[in-house]
Amino acid sequence: MELTKETKILIVGLGVIGGGYAAALTRQGYNVSCITLKQEDIDYAIANGIIKSGTTRTDERLIGEADLVVFALYPGVFINWIEKNQHMLKSGCIITDVTGVKGSVVYKVQGMLRSDVEFISAHPMAGRERSGVEYSNPDVFHGANYIVTPTDKNTEDAIKLAEELGNVLGFARISRLTPEEHDVMIAFLSQLTHCIAVTLMNSNRSAGLEKYTGDSFRDLTRIAKINDEMWSELFMLNRDALLSEMDAFAAEFNTFRNMLSDGDVQGMREKMQESTKRRSLFDKPKGV
Amino acid sequence: MELTKETKILIVGLGVIGGGYAAALTRQGYNVSCITLKQEDIDYAIANGIIKSGTTRTDERLIGEADLVVFALYPGVFINWIEKNQHMLKSGCIITDVTGVKGSVVYKVQGMLRSDVEFISAHPMAGRERSGVEYSNPDVFHGANYIVTPTDKNTEDAIKLAEELGNVLGFARISRLTPEEHDVMIAFLSQLTHCIAVTLMNSNRSAGLEKYTGDSFRDLTRIAKINDEMWSELFMLNRDALLSEMDAFAAEFNTFRNMLSDGDVQGMREKMQESTKRRSLFDKPKGV
Repeated sequence: MELTKETKILIVGLGVIGGGYAAALTRQGYNVSCITLKQEDIDYAIANGIIKSGTTRTDERLIGEADLVVFALYPGVFINWIEKNQHMLKSGCIITDVTGVKGSVVYKVQGMLRSDVEFISAHPMAGRERSGVEYSNPDVFHGANYIVTPTDKNTEDAIKLAEELGNVLGFARISRLTPEEHDVMIAFLSQLTHCIAVTLMNSNRSAGLEKYTGDSFRDLTRIAKINDEMWSELFMLNRDALLSEMDAFAAEFNTFRNMLSDGDVQGMREKMQESTKRRSLFDKPKGV
Repeated sequence: MELTKETKILIVGLGVIGGGYAAALTRQGYNVSCITLKQEDIDYAIANGIIKSGTTRTDERLIGEADLVVFALYPGVFINWIEKNQHMLKSGCIITDVTGVKGSVVYKVQGMLRSDVEFISAHPMAGRERSGVEYSNPDVFHGANYIVTPTDKNTEDAIKLAEELGNVLGFARISRLTPEEHDVMIAFLSQLTHCIAVTLMNSNRSAGLEKYTGDSFRDLTRIAKINDEMWSELFMLNRDALLSEMDAFAAEFNTFRNMLSDGDVQGMREKMQESTKRRSLFDKPKGV
């Protein structure tokens, strides 16, 4: 399947990510329809040019027509949807997702899915610290990374379709990882960072600190504004990998703490030189 | 002393902060002169309208004329400068600084200073992850916090002059703290955040992670690009307060880790709800 302006794309779940996908596709003239939970989100999205139409019903006709279905749901809700509604999907259609963990989702969905429908999983590495369609913004995809996580069950055609979707959405760098590689990577780059931000925000509760803060504290705690329902689910679905990254971080933090305690200035400076050098790899590509 | 366009202001040390001060004052028509180590920094600053003139010499005439001297130096260099050169200062002049720790600097400088010169210490809570005058930018002060740390030795006149300097530089919120209060606050808001960023950057060295990163990791490690000479000195000068904040953070992190390990979803969600609520206090004031 090629992704063209005629491809019937259905987005299920119009939150901050689903809304961003819808807006990016709609403004380029793609054929996008939408199913989501709340009528007010549909109303908002229509009023703001994010979608042309949408429904809160699990509309059998709409689902049965879609060539490409994007699930932008919490992992558990996504799996339940497939269990309950997969009979409505069009034979030969491709489904994809935006789920933040893969190992505990991809194999389960592929294992239960009808054999005439293909699920190719992907993860857009761009989000907002707020949830809801009113915070969606397709511009956050520009300069961001997009990861496709194929398994043995996937065809090269479906993988390429998912990659083409990432291209159309404006992602700067599109990669392939196995679900397992993805989950180890995400435990470090995303889940650990959220654990740290939450912890930092809660670790000193003195009153009035906001009067004195600089931007470094603001930056480190931006994501301490967090969707607790979604993130606790993601953490639990990737528990072993996340615990391993948390323990590695705690050990490294303790090493630095002991250097300070021992007055090992040279040791601290070497750690800082290493972090300075390594951080430059992570600068955003120029011009994005 | 009032701060007027006639006040002769001398900035000692033309780095990222001294350069920002100079630029902000020069563009408002204040009378600014400058002493710094490298001629190339003076050349750059003149070429970019940051200063009108400057010297690399410890110019006795220039120092002896200044009504207000701002020291934008590393703490140890600042203390040495005072020891060696304070005889050049004009009788009745006010000196201030931008040093990131206070308890170990303020009393020492005030204790050794001539009785006809007053030192009022202040800390602009705005920096850059890069050092050097070429990264200086007076706009970083807008919306930022500025803290004056008077002691019993300070006059209300000098405190007000330091506050007026903060105003002129464009800081949004100007506060007073004792040196001790400042150091406890800075250990948490600034020094701990830098320890965390350095640690996070160093705690997983897998190759190629930059291909997959999202903005949350970038935000949490922005300050892992760090001036190791300056920050290791600041950490050592505030060691006890920083160790105490590091230990509080490590304990809170361990609590969260054990919740995850135990599958305590409700506990994790409560931590996230707390951090979300508390983080909203730290949003930048609107319009800055």
